[in-house]
Amino acid sequence: MPDIRPSADGARVLADLNALRAIGAYKTGVHKPTFSEPHKQSLEWLMQKLPDAGLGAVIDGIGNVFGTSAKAGPKLLAGSHLESQNYAGWLDGPLGVVYALETARVLNRDPSVTGAVEVAAWCDEEGHFGSFLGSRSYIGQVTEADIDAARDRTNGRTMRDALADMGLAGQARIAVEPGRHVGYLEAHIEQGDTLESGQLAIGVVTSIVGIWQYQINFVGEQNHAGTTRMAARKDAGLALAKFCVAIDERFPAACGPRTVWTTGRITLDPGAPSIIPGGAEMLFQIRDDNPTVIARLEELLRTMADEASTNGPCAVIVTKLRTGAPAMMNAGFQDAIDAASKIFAGGRSLRMPSGAGHDAQMLATVMPAGMLFVPSIGGISHHWTENTADADIVTGAEVFVDACRRILES
Amino acid sequence: MPDIRPSADGARVLADLNALRAIGAYKTGVHKPTFSEPHKQSLEWLMQKLPDAGLGAVIDGIGNVFGTSAKAGPKLLAGSHLESQNYAGWLDGPLGVVYALETARVLNRDPSVTGAVEVAAWCDEEGHFGSFLGSRSYIGQVTEADIDAARDRTNGRTMRDALADMGLAGQARIAVEPGRHVGYLEAHIEQGDTLESGQLAIGVVTSIVGIWQYQINFVGEQNHAGTTRMAARKDAGLALAKFCVAIDERFPAACGPRTVWTTGRITLDPGAPSIIPGGAEMLFQIRDDNPTVIARLEELLRTMADEASTNGPCAVIVTKLRTGAPAMMNAGFQDAIDAASKIFAGGRSLRMPSGAGHDAQMLATVMPAGMLFVPSIGGISHHWTENTADADIVTGAEVFVDACRRILES
Repeated sequence: MPDIRPSADGARVLADLNALRAIGAYKTGVHKPTFSEPHKQSLEWLMQKLPDAGLGAVIDGIGNVFGTSAKAGPKLLAGSHLESQNYAGWLDGPLGVVYALETARVLNRDPSVTGAVEVAAWCDEEGHFGSFLGSRSYIGQVTEADIDAARDRTNGRTMRDALADMGLAGQARIAVEPGRHVGYLEAHIEQGDTLESGQLAIGVVTSIVGIWQYQINFVGEQNHAGTTRMAARKDAGLALAKFCVAIDERFPAACGPRTVWTTGRITLDPGAPSIIPGGAEMLFQIRDDNPTVIARLEELLRTMADEASTNGPCAVIVTKLRTGAPAMMNAGFQDAIDAASKIFAGGRSLRMPSGAGHDAQMLATVMPAGMLFVPSIGGISHHWTENTADADIVTGAEVFVDACRRILES
Repeated sequence: MPDIRPSADGARVLADLNALRAIGAYKTGVHKPTFSEPHKQSLEWLMQKLPDAGLGAVIDGIGNVFGTSAKAGPKLLAGSHLESQNYAGWLDGPLGVVYALETARVLNRDPSVTGAVEVAAWCDEEGHFGSFLGSRSYIGQVTEADIDAARDRTNGRTMRDALADMGLAGQARIAVEPGRHVGYLEAHIEQGDTLESGQLAIGVVTSIVGIWQYQINFVGEQNHAGTTRMAARKDAGLALAKFCVAIDERFPAACGPRTVWTTGRITLDPGAPSIIPGGAEMLFQIRDDNPTVIARLEELLRTMADEASTNGPCAVIVTKLRTGAPAMMNAGFQDAIDAASKIFAGGRSLRMPSGAGHDAQMLATVMPAGMLFVPSIGGISHHWTENTADADIVTGAEVFVDACRRILES
């Protein structure tokens, strides 16, 4: 151990994570949708653990659990979420909560540490009822009307009914207390294979990418698939296929080093085997942490659409559905994680953006925020086979504790 | 008039077609689904007209109307259908029935003609309840169980209920009487723009093309659209788009002069904006009247699939769903139409395959069959704006009558 100060207890971290996995276990993962019985039990498990870290436990009116400290000095907020996607992995969420809990256990009673780590488990990061409802509520972006309207996307249960079943109906929601925290730190599995393929232990998140989403429509001419000569056709489906291939050919020269783009849905109209499609539509998404890159790609997309419309035979129309500003992670927090990685992970760390969304992007709008990634085996995510090597989990916990200590000290 | 023998009465033909258009009129077209009230009235209209042509009128248990002659000598069967696609054109079907009726009126009472023309209106050529149910019933390919199972594809009404509403429940179906007819002749609008673009009046159908249908599946890897690097992706949707473009590039060198191919439906799995599609599927159709061309194209398709699978990153699997043998039209009937065109259409005729299916392809399996096309304005089909110039309708009738006369004489 290259540092004489108390660090994470790896065995305790693994025991806690496995205790949470046992609640709502599904194969080697978990099925723990927001406000399900296993989710409720997981929140209760956390509330029972918080006093060990010198924290008072409270759950608010949207299901956020907080561990709050009465200790003097700076306070750092740390956490993640405890619900899962349906039939998904055991670490997506719990890893960050257990790291925060462990850090509070190590640092809050260490007399050499001024200040304390407070713990948060944000509700519904996985979006069963909405989008980052817990962390967005905390930063003041969720109205009562939003909650009135929210329903479980799997079974249609209203959020009001779910909150009542949790015993939370009518309970106040806790909002950010300006000045209380020096910042927010969150650990998470990478959900990609960058760390694993580079044989690295720690991802130092530089930003959480924004998501720009487009609907691209192709206007052709519906006609009989038997009687219309090839030369006379205005096949909207073929125009769409050519556009997808053109994106694949032209985006690499214009994109940034980590830009990703995806056509997730394609629809042909009318979609019958004997009819030449008169219309076609694709949902297209670009993610990057650099708005300049996105602007360049969006311009390219519109240029390509204009070219295709001019060259024919189908008109191409690009409609922007969603603009996502990236969230930048605090530079000092990145340095703290890097410094901790040098000591506990042999410097096997990489600065990288997060392609997925996280609660930290909400917190980043009200306080300095940072994120630490641990490797995902095979890059697998949102599936019950999601996993991280025990050694990597322990290394991540050690780095997380040390990074929090450095942030509180700075 | 270059021929002194009685020919079609153009004004009577146009009056009959317009009378049928008035039944179930929709804008300038008709809405006359199989067994709808307007369809029923159209069949009744025909049954009242048949005696003018010296024909006895009968409707059978599947809704086929026949005009039968007691005259001695050879008998030629002629006809088409009276129902329409939903909200579609006024000539698709009625043109062939009225030509047949007009020909019977002209020839059956002409003492110089030996034999007679008999008229048929085949039920449900448009496939509201099945596929060519009327003509397939006549050639013995529809079982009672098929009728039990048939439902209106628009509203789910059972065919049994529809037949009962028509007063046809329990009525016998009329089957082909071997040796009764020297053959079958059908007139139809082209449904394409070949005749119009060549300033031609008559299409002499050489064959009705077969339809070969394939399901092509692409097997990739479903993954997170934010965290999966472009280089690590196995995007089944992109593989499909590339395959569509490759077909567009490579089929023209291997196809026949009139081959057509169509991708009518595309599905991505799971089809969500933030998920890289792990699977993709396309429905692909090839039509030609030459099985050798089809065999060559199918081999090319399978070669392309193998190449794509080998080059990766997605496996491509081609499954044949349907093999459609083309129906060849009788050579003597083609000569008869051509000869009639020389006299009544100034020879402005073209031998051409039919890309669309017609009842004649069913009749061709049990007797010599032929088809005559008239031009479609703008090639429009299965839409209420479908139309043919009055002059072309009259010319077509004159050619049809003369062609029938020649067939009966030969």
